[in-house]
Amino acid sequence: MTSTAAVTPSAETSAVALERLRETVPLVQSLTNIVSANYLTNVLLAAGATNAVIDNPHEAAFFAGIAGGVLVNLGTPTDFQAAAFEEAARTAHEKGTPWVLDPVGVGGLPWRTKLAAELLTHRPTAIRGNGSEIAAVAGLGGEGRGVDSAADAADAVPAALALLDVAGAVSASGPVDYVVGRVGDAPQTVRVLGGSDLLPRVTATGCSLGALSAAYLAVADPFTGLVAAHAHFAVASELAAQNSAGPGTFAPAFLDALASVTPDDLRRSARIERVIA
Amino acid sequence: MTSTAAVTPSAETSAVALERLRETVPLVQSLTNIVSANYLTNVLLAAGATNAVIDNPHEAAFFAGIAGGVLVNLGTPTDFQAAAFEEAARTAHEKGTPWVLDPVGVGGLPWRTKLAAELLTHRPTAIRGNGSEIAAVAGLGGEGRGVDSAADAADAVPAALALLDVAGAVSASGPVDYVVGRVGDAPQTVRVLGGSDLLPRVTATGCSLGALSAAYLAVADPFTGLVAAHAHFAVASELAAQNSAGPGTFAPAFLDALASVTPDDLRRSARIERVIA
Amino acid sequence: MTSTAAVTPSAETSAVALERLRETVPLVQSLTNIVSANYLTNVLLAAGATNAVIDNPHEAAFFAGIAGGVLVNLGTPTDFQAAAFEEAARTAHEKGTPWVLDPVGVGGLPWRTKLAAELLTHRPTAIRGNGSEIAAVAGLGGEGRGVDSAADAADAVPAALALLDVAGAVSASGPVDYVVGRVGDAPQTVRVLGGSDLLPRVTATGCSLGALSAAYLAVADPFTGLVAAHAHFAVASELAAQNSAGPGTFAPAFLDALASVTPDDLRRSARIERVIA
Repeated sequence: MTSTAAVTPSAETSAVALERLRETVPLVQSLTNIVSANYLTNVLLAAGATNAVIDNPHEAAFFAGIAGGVLVNLGTPTDFQAAAFEEAARTAHEKGTPWVLDPVGVGGLPWRTKLAAELLTHRPTAIRGNGSEIAAVAGLGGEGRGVDSAADAADAVPAALALLDVAGAVSASGPVDYVVGRVGDAPQTVRVLGGSDLLPRVTATGCSLGALSAAYLAVADPFTGLVAAHAHFAVASELAAQNSAGPGTFAPAFLDALASVTPDDLRRSARIERVIA
Repeated sequence: MTSTAAVTPSAETSAVALERLRETVPLVQSLTNIVSANYLTNVLLAAGATNAVIDNPHEAAFFAGIAGGVLVNLGTPTDFQAAAFEEAARTAHEKGTPWVLDPVGVGGLPWRTKLAAELLTHRPTAIRGNGSEIAAVAGLGGEGRGVDSAADAADAVPAALALLDVAGAVSASGPVDYVVGRVGDAPQTVRVLGGSDLLPRVTATGCSLGALSAAYLAVADPFTGLVAAHAHFAVASELAAQNSAGPGTFAPAFLDALASVTPDDLRRSARIERVIA
Repeated sequence: MTSTAAVTPSAETSAVALERLRETVPLVQSLTNIVSANYLTNVLLAAGATNAVIDNPHEAAFFAGIAGGVLVNLGTPTDFQAAAFEEAARTAHEKGTPWVLDPVGVGGLPWRTKLAAELLTHRPTAIRGNGSEIAAVAGLGGEGRGVDSAADAADAVPAALALLDVAGAVSASGPVDYVVGRVGDAPQTVRVLGGSDLLPRVTATGCSLGALSAAYLAVADPFTGLVAAHAHFAVASELAAQNSAGPGTFAPAFLDALASVTPDDLRRSARIERVIA
């Protein structure tokens, strides 16, 4: 796997990544919270990957050496799980397993903010959060940005770009997702349009996007993979919204849609635009 | 927020509470069990509130100071989580954040019964349980009732009334829900009719009612808010039953219905009756 | 409850077991993982049983003495939960409560493999896993088989038969399920055909089958009960597949189907065959 993208991520590169995902069925190791563990696993199974929640410190490092990708999600941490985060992230970094940091609540909550700072030393392959979380994580890396209150994902782009010092790619999710990474040596930013306003009304969809990102990092470079995960989500959520009567029926319809979306659907429907600063 | 109701809770006061819920989108902090964490969060999002599961002792007190309402649910406690219960309940009481105790399994299980007794010292704003649990909790408060085996929610009304010494309002849920609280200085009892027999066939619906109660306590006094949560549940469950083929499809249909129910639906359809002892 | 089957388990014995399940509504105690806790409980409620997740070491032994059946699932263990596993399994064995071991990940993961070896000393009433897990567990019992890589459930039949030294019945689940047990003193093997390829695309269905097995062990001998659980699953999953548009909508449809399947449906549709080695 090259560590930077050859071309700016696009609908075409997302389609190719989905083809590879479906062919190789990557195994994700998720260390995640009690709210998302079930739905996140169903998202991975539906999309075309598999998942194992191995979140204890006795086995986390071992498994991070054999998984295709690792998700570390700070949603409902315990001391026990925090020890596993450290083991998994360190091992993933050492062995070259791609890993995703999902810094849920970082910035707003003191203990997990400290956990995130420690995890950053293991250089996540990608970081996925909302705008506020990305801004907060950027403040931890010594870039001196502090914890901005970034209401909009677009506002977090400078923070995301700053995080390319420690991560291969970074996304700030929102109604429009912003994803930054490197094409060759040059930092670039793209936005992923589309999606559904029902998506944020179902819990664990953000966490699931982090998990799906870990799956895509097993089959593509960080920037290309992170964009593909967001594109897969956006296209599937539009399809699901057509088959839903509200947030309750959207949740299973979204899983159906993640499963039914094809690479050609991404080619046709993914809306990915390069953002020139 | 006044601490007692101005009038006996009714369909009208429930409708007004729902209007305020939808306008203010209260943030609930849930400390809950591994069975309910996902569904309960989706219930809050669907109904018009938001939720953060902050259940570790490092952050629970901090967050109880900023949340709109707190749920402490004893479903699957760990030692780690029990320390967070204590932190959250104490802080909520000290800072005036309304908090709900859901005493899952209290009476029948020894350790959590002791946990509940300790939590009662922090004077929950409301307590929600089934009849047996409410009777058991009343036995903890020194009223000398012991652990009755209250098969029917109606049988728990004396226990619920006794608990008004420590809580602002108390409900015993069942096919018919009984809710007690104060109007001015006078204890009153109402029953909430309706609902669906599919509701108890979906796990975590009771826990979700506790969480929704915490959301309503952020926008109404304890008695009015607790009744509104039960009325919202009853009306939504009737609607959901019309769109379900069994308990499996009822679960997402219930979320859709919680989202679609309007204040006027509560005005028209909520069946709340004052019970004169 | 006799400890061995009077006749080879069949569609008829499964139908009778389902009748007893619906009449008696057994209470299962589940010690399970954060991925499956919600869905597994909904499976039990839909099928006709009830569930309590009592997985802390302060209460696990107490409850194992009063539950109808106990599930110990090794999916996402913590040190705290592992202590509860030991308490529940030991007490279930001592008091004669049937208990099921679901050895998730055993063989592939070092710590839980050691946990499983300790739990085997409390002689599970039944063991349910996939082929690899059953082969791995057999390697723990001193039979000297080691950890085979059994890709197919059929390949795990010799391992399952070896485990009859410590367990009343054993199943290896897959596209075709193999279940072994004793009829009188003689070991026998049956296979349960049918099912849906959507079933493994929904997480927690395997764990839920373990939980449903614990419910059936409360109303039948180990071999008969374990086969009935698999037959109930297979018939319901076929029905659910007809009402699904993908893995997302399959999940609630499967719960509906578990609830709607009748004993006569099992008589007509369950496909259970004796395997002569």
